[in-house]
Amino acid sequence: MAAALGKDSKCSIARSVEVLGDSWTLLIIREAMVTDTTRFQDFRDRLGVAGNILAKRLAFLVDEGVFERRTYQKAGTRTREEYLLTEAGRSLSVVIAALAEWGRARRPREDGTSPNFFDRKTDTRAQLAFVASDGSRIPPEQLIARRTRDS
Amino acid sequence: MAAALGKDSKCSIARSVEVLGDSWTLLIIREAMVTDTTRFQDFRDRLGVAGNILAKRLAFLVDEGVFERRTYQKAGTRTREEYLLTEAGRSLSVVIAALAEWGRARRPREDGTSPNFFDRKTDTRAQLAFVASDGSRIPPEQLIARRTRDS
Repeated sequence: MAAALGKDSKCSIARSVEVLGDSWTLLIIREAMVTDTTRFQDFRDRLGVAGNILAKRLAFLVDEGVFERRTYQKAGTRTREEYLLTEAGRSLSVVIAALAEWGRARRPREDGTSPNFFDRKTDTRAQLAFVASDGSRIPPEQLIARRTRDS
Repeated sequence: MAAALGKDSKCSIARSVEVLGDSWTLLIIREAMVTDTTRFQDFRDRLGVAGNILAKRLAFLVDEGVFERRTYQKAGTRTREEYLLTEAGRSLSVVIAALAEWGRARRPREDGTSPNFFDRKTDTRAQLAFVASDGSRIPPEQLIARRTRDS
């Protein structure tokens, strides 16, 4: 279990941040999502993260149900492990898309790259938006935040 | 400037995480957004965060353009400082909403609470969704992520 942070561990933000509130963690999830990385060595090479940090983060994310660890073996080699996003892990696409949009808009770089999400059926770009129950988009400046009970 | 993390500092996720990839940071932003907290003492009391950590995080977020520091004075008291979300800070509503949805769905708690976003004009709940350019919603399982250039 992740450690509770601050007074208000009831809040959904605190509950998410307990799992995700580490920089490497979000980059590991990004890499799995965008480049379909599954192997330890590939995560290490692509992210440039130290092996001991990566091992710790992956073990934590397996415990938290974001990744599933699977053993595989190619003929003539020793068994290896790969890490696959679970359904809970894949549903982090909203978080990754939100972070990508903010980084793109508020930390622009000429040589910048981003994870982008596409509709598999039409191959057109998907955008993250606030919508009303009738499906109409709500402009962000029209939003107001309030703390409510989950149930 | 925030420190670059990992190899790929070009990526929008890395750029966002450099600013936001600290647990307290996200909780500070949540508190400003949901309860309109502006004063140091109120952030400290509501979050239960140590004063030295809070001071460091707020100074960093001012440097990064997420908060604006303003001095105010009530009659007969010493001047104090308050922290207001900038436009870049307020645009983090998408990130906060994404984290709230994930926490609610994947880390449910009976006594859970969440920041929720409402349309100021209609007072109805806003939901975060992936939409196509014609405004239609795309089911998350139909999405595919790819790394693309920002410009």
